[in-house]
Amino acid sequence: MSLKEACALDAADPLRFFRERFSLPEDTIYLDGNSLGALPRATPARIAEVVAREWGESLIRSWNDSDWITLPQRVGGKIAGLIGAAPEEVVACDSTSVNLYKALAAALVLRPGRKVILSEPGNFPTDLYVVEGLERLGLAELRLAEPGQIIGAIDANVAAVMLTHVHYKSGRVHDMAALTAAAQAQGALAVWDLSHSAGALEIDLTACNADLAVGCGYKYLNGGPGAPGFIYAAARHHAGLINPLSGWMGHAAPFAFADAYAPAPGMARMLSGTPPVLGLAALEVGTDLVTAAGMAALTAKSRALTQFFIAAMAEQTPALELASPADPCARGSQVSFRHPHAYAICQAAIAAGVIGDFRDPDILRFGFAPLYIGFADAWNAARIVGQIVASGAWDREQFRTRNAVT
Amino acid sequence: MSLKEACALDAADPLRFFRERFSLPEDTIYLDGNSLGALPRATPARIAEVVAREWGESLIRSWNDSDWITLPQRVGGKIAGLIGAAPEEVVACDSTSVNLYKALAAALVLRPGRKVILSEPGNFPTDLYVVEGLERLGLAELRLAEPGQIIGAIDANVAAVMLTHVHYKSGRVHDMAALTAAAQAQGALAVWDLSHSAGALEIDLTACNADLAVGCGYKYLNGGPGAPGFIYAAARHHAGLINPLSGWMGHAAPFAFADAYAPAPGMARMLSGTPPVLGLAALEVGTDLVTAAGMAALTAKSRALTQFFIAAMAEQTPALELASPADPCARGSQVSFRHPHAYAICQAAIAAGVIGDFRDPDILRFGFAPLYIGFADAWNAARIVGQIVASGAWDREQFRTRNAVT
Repeated sequence: MSLKEACALDAADPLRFFRERFSLPEDTIYLDGNSLGALPRATPARIAEVVAREWGESLIRSWNDSDWITLPQRVGGKIAGLIGAAPEEVVACDSTSVNLYKALAAALVLRPGRKVILSEPGNFPTDLYVVEGLERLGLAELRLAEPGQIIGAIDANVAAVMLTHVHYKSGRVHDMAALTAAAQAQGALAVWDLSHSAGALEIDLTACNADLAVGCGYKYLNGGPGAPGFIYAAARHHAGLINPLSGWMGHAAPFAFADAYAPAPGMARMLSGTPPVLGLAALEVGTDLVTAAGMAALTAKSRALTQFFIAAMAEQTPALELASPADPCARGSQVSFRHPHAYAICQAAIAAGVIGDFRDPDILRFGFAPLYIGFADAWNAARIVGQIVASGAWDREQFRTRNAVT
Repeated sequence: MSLKEACALDAADPLRFFRERFSLPEDTIYLDGNSLGALPRATPARIAEVVAREWGESLIRSWNDSDWITLPQRVGGKIAGLIGAAPEEVVACDSTSVNLYKALAAALVLRPGRKVILSEPGNFPTDLYVVEGLERLGLAELRLAEPGQIIGAIDANVAAVMLTHVHYKSGRVHDMAALTAAAQAQGALAVWDLSHSAGALEIDLTACNADLAVGCGYKYLNGGPGAPGFIYAAARHHAGLINPLSGWMGHAAPFAFADAYAPAPGMARMLSGTPPVLGLAALEVGTDLVTAAGMAALTAKSRALTQFFIAAMAEQTPALELASPADPCARGSQVSFRHPHAYAICQAAIAAGVIGDFRDPDILRFGFAPLYIGFADAWNAARIVGQIVASGAWDREQFRTRNAVT
């Protein structure tokens, strides 16, 4: 394997022109788009327009004149196109954690008499914490089953099976169709967290017959730090869908200022407070780029890229143990390795311009956002990490302070 | 009364230089800062820096290097200084509606065995809707009492008295100290919504012995459309404080990625998902301006301004009935009038450059953000509205389509 080979793959990549649509520092190979997506070149101008013209000049009138008021539906509708949902099944709003709370509370009401939310240990922690929040109020009961035992753990007490489609640490992909069917066979609902797959991997919520889903706007959708997330509910559930966080923006007639709550039709009822306009405007720019590239092409590139990186790493750095599935179809757009000194290696790699991240206790994680990362990036990253591991240059005191943030 | 008199008052206004620190369209008198605060001149550059440099160049590293991770506490601490709270008693995050849900669920847990949330009819609707959300889950019971009967309606079933400090429609101020004491005398907590007072009116949560509070970032704090809100809990409640929306950012060690939730000490546990960085950065700029002006000076100017406007309107437009308290100490920074054709008059005023707003069914509302509105603005607005009412120019078909958005 060689840089030449990598460059040839880049030259043949139908998505290669998308890299120019992102602002990336020149001296950096950014393999952390699974944590914070890169900045689209169009975003600064769009945000400047929202701030200076829409807010500064048109002021309150922009809720109508610039369609701020329908941003959650408009951006949600665009995200729907990336995850196999109908536009009216998704709204963009709040954080993933808050949306998950809504989805789970809605699931519990849709399945009265059942209190168990089934998940797996090691799921992204906020998912489990949100169930604990419902548990503390006496509304739910968290049950955990190891991945291989999830289906067997679904019984008549389970209101919802809640899983993250692509695991944040290993990149392992759950079989959405099979697990959804298994949940539904026991009368339970399937609630999917798409944070690590939306925008990186083809998802077909409709074909999988998913019930509810949430996802993140600041990873592969490139919405910027702390961008709003999104929430999906299959149209068949809309009539019975409740929002525990029933706020005025989810009201059927918010500007009638009626004392009594009446839910808006469809997903609009899943809105709570006033939409975060700056965050939604940035998320729209990022989402539009993903839409322009197309999920089929992105998925194909993601698999080829991560496969190429695994091969390059095996060649350059056999000391690192692969912690992600070897089968590209069983893997999201990231590759993780295990090493007892993963933290120090990660810090040394960052110092050398390769930004990946560390996950407790021994995981080195590299994300490959297929929209803007190429094969030469993968090859150079493997080479640099290989040199660091071989040289022992990571084993220095300066790399020992742990202050990593996802 | 005359424009000359208004100009003399402006010339003597110690806050007059703050107007230059806002971007306001030249042909507009903006009396809707109580709905969406104006754009601080410093905001576009600050947001551009966050987007282009912190996100675009430093990428994931900015969570540490640009202190994104402590934004909720930093901005919350600044807001604390405006509402008579200690810095560690406030965090900025989520929407007001979502924060209110957290505050009420926390209050219910702090007062086990009590389920009633007592409020008043005609409170800002989202406040009532949020209680309904808790009610639908069987966690709370909403009780309404007319303003004069609130104290009598507090009994041993009341977990919390939840009121908005300044009424969104009339501007009437509740006696925070007296109502808090009355709630506490019955063993209940006092939860205050400061949306229409924070940044416009002196508030002393500590002196009033308030228990919990929430407020809005996009009105008098000038944080921009859909800016994050804030949440306060008195330090004495921190040990027993729960967050129903327990997400990873409220965990004692978010980056340990532990399966079990352990709340962070103090208000950090009231965080849920990843902080909305763009919104918080804009909110910080707006809050800093309020801090620089000082709440005592702002309150004094607010009272003088609204008093002046009421007098000017009485002179120019006796047909409009005052719907706000006449006593400036019983009134927030807004003045409302009642008229059967309030909607059409409001639309005609907007067309003539005076932006106020309409509230169902017959309220014309004018907000006076004391940071950037002056006495000449008030005089000119009264003159223009007076002309519209006198001429009947508002009574045209074109002003009849109702599409106002708060």
